[in-house]
Amino acid sequence: MKKLLSILSAVFVAVTALAQQALGPGTGLVSPEINPDHSVTFRLFAPKAVMVKLTGDFLPTRFVDLKEGPDGVWSYTTAPLEGELYSYSFIVDGRRTMDPSNIHQNRDVATWTNIFTLSTEKGDRGWYYEVHDVPHGTLSHVWYNSPTLGSQRRLTVYTPAGYEDSPKTRYPVLYLLHGSGGDEDAWSDLGRTAQILDNLIAEGKARPMIVVMPNGVWFNQAAPGAAVNMFQPTFANSRSQSTVEVENSFPDIMDFVEKHYRVAKGYANTAVAGLSMGGRQSCALSMRYPKKFGYVGLFSGVATPEGNEAALDAVFAAQPKLYWIGVGKDDGVRVNSLKLKDYCDTKGFPVTYYESDGGHIWRNWRIYLTIFAQKLFK
Amino acid sequence: MKKLLSILSAVFVAVTALAQQALGPGTGLVSPEINPDHSVTFRLFAPKAVMVKLTGDFLPTRFVDLKEGPDGVWSYTTAPLEGELYSYSFIVDGRRTMDPSNIHQNRDVATWTNIFTLSTEKGDRGWYYEVHDVPHGTLSHVWYNSPTLGSQRRLTVYTPAGYEDSPKTRYPVLYLLHGSGGDEDAWSDLGRTAQILDNLIAEGKARPMIVVMPNGVWFNQAAPGAAVNMFQPTFANSRSQSTVEVENSFPDIMDFVEKHYRVAKGYANTAVAGLSMGGRQSCALSMRYPKKFGYVGLFSGVATPEGNEAALDAVFAAQPKLYWIGVGKDDGVRVNSLKLKDYCDTKGFPVTYYESDGGHIWRNWRIYLTIFAQKLFK
Repeated sequence: MKKLLSILSAVFVAVTALAQQALGPGTGLVSPEINPDHSVTFRLFAPKAVMVKLTGDFLPTRFVDLKEGPDGVWSYTTAPLEGELYSYSFIVDGRRTMDPSNIHQNRDVATWTNIFTLSTEKGDRGWYYEVHDVPHGTLSHVWYNSPTLGSQRRLTVYTPAGYEDSPKTRYPVLYLLHGSGGDEDAWSDLGRTAQILDNLIAEGKARPMIVVMPNGVWFNQAAPGAAVNMFQPTFANSRSQSTVEVENSFPDIMDFVEKHYRVAKGYANTAVAGLSMGGRQSCALSMRYPKKFGYVGLFSGVATPEGNEAALDAVFAAQPKLYWIGVGKDDGVRVNSLKLKDYCDTKGFPVTYYESDGGHIWRNWRIYLTIFAQKLFK
Repeated sequence: MKKLLSILSAVFVAVTALAQQALGPGTGLVSPEINPDHSVTFRLFAPKAVMVKLTGDFLPTRFVDLKEGPDGVWSYTTAPLEGELYSYSFIVDGRRTMDPSNIHQNRDVATWTNIFTLSTEKGDRGWYYEVHDVPHGTLSHVWYNSPTLGSQRRLTVYTPAGYEDSPKTRYPVLYLLHGSGGDEDAWSDLGRTAQILDNLIAEGKARPMIVVMPNGVWFNQAAPGAAVNMFQPTFANSRSQSTVEVENSFPDIMDFVEKHYRVAKGYANTAVAGLSMGGRQSCALSMRYPKKFGYVGLFSGVATPEGNEAALDAVFAAQPKLYWIGVGKDDGVRVNSLKLKDYCDTKGFPVTYYESDGGHIWRNWRIYLTIFAQKLFK
């Protein structure tokens, strides 16, 4: 039978591939190709194109031109790159085009972009974002009921390797919040949370912890595709920027997590952090519930002290184990982070301030998570 | 503070959107738009394009032409459609292009395609593939160790609504296998397993069950992006078509599942089903372990009786609760399914044979899962 099966298999493979695959040759191309010197070559088969450009977060300019070879394959090779998770797109005659040779993509709000990781040595930044042969945690998409918001809502939950096999162990929890237009999949997909935590824990650099990634847009139940009705996500509007609903309903999430997971409860075992809008929510949650979160992380967070002096004083009166502020040198919200830092410095409140290169981008938020996670629950 | 935050938020939103979003206007278009009569309108802003075509599994021909309006927006409206999950792509001047107005996509092996669901009434086919306000199960990505294959491997596991809140209940298990070139995410993403099961269970049409979706390519640990090293998946080759490694290592999966989940063990509580290559693996697993699987489903499976007569006789000697064969009228493997059915008929073995329209496509596999799941564990 096996021989017959092999022959038949070959037949459908051909048929199925034809039905689903591309409209010409060039699909066997390797792109991107990481060269031995860590430069990267991009290739696109586009014999009819007049102009092919590349845009990516590793380029010295916003766009570069690819050159066409006699075979209709356009290509471009970068300078050697550092370890990192990079994003790029082709622009073919003015139209943004996914790389058909690279199925690796991620979605930021309403935009899909090709990605690749590069690591030049063990332990560099790209290494932490890749999957290695270390013990792996579980990533679950679970639903909880929010009586406050009157709906079922979806959570992404990371439980560390060994969780299922250690039925008596209780774990600290990091609540990790996304930014405007994001959803409960943003941190796991764009933020590589599972990979970062798996690798940090395996290296002994972070404690095993549960990471809970809620949907921070209070009127959405779930990410697109997982929600009732298909919808096209958009960046923030004033309605989604409101934090009061998130503050009011956050105990619903914590109640669910503490009931369904083996959680080490209490101030010293509970952290909240978020990026951009999620940084603002984290700041607001720490002020609303000053005795809940012993660790607070604001990643490019939009929070300033003005009008919140008393609430911030209460936060620090509870003596948080860590109040961590990270922001990029070129980030428009840096001014807020500095105001908050200055206020805390003047008051003698211990804050840890970290400044990276670059702006309001996921590259920075992955860096901040990697640093912040190592400081938790120790 | 809130006022300041709102202003600042608006600033980044603009900046971030500019940095990440498209290269011109037209991004506010609605596409696809489902009209009141269930026809569907597709739109693409492409003022420089010479020719824009649409390909999709709902069209009477392989391609149709969009017409350009004076605003540079190309559009096409279908005839009224039945409830279904549909796939489509634009072809702009010969190049396959994702719809920038629709972030909903899925990946079949190495091809991303835009998708949408349409439901004309409760309970039609599209309705079962959509998310409704019913109790939702959990979808988890977990890793197990396979001593037989010498590696960690990734599984996708669906646990039904109520699983976490019913600590004394044990659940039957369906092992659900993908086809050539697929991975442990294929059934949940392309097959809408979680939505189908959530909806069938909520309607009382299927029993609450655990669904375990392994990676059936024995030399891959995990889906692209979740695996060590990035790789571009390909359709089957003879190496991946071999079933012996899957047969040998399957007890590693069952041992893990039975240890880590509250499983109702035994013949009457265990099912195996798969599509195409996975149908062949399901047939092989039922022959290898004839007393393990009380329910067997071959969905467009590549399996014939020749050379397997004794093994099939042993399968039916164990009196399976259900041996279900589904295939499309236009499927190249229909001949195999018929041979298997004829053999069983001649022998007096009870098989259930189901023939649908169409060929070797996911539309059929979602239909087969919807039918098969209703027949399990009853």
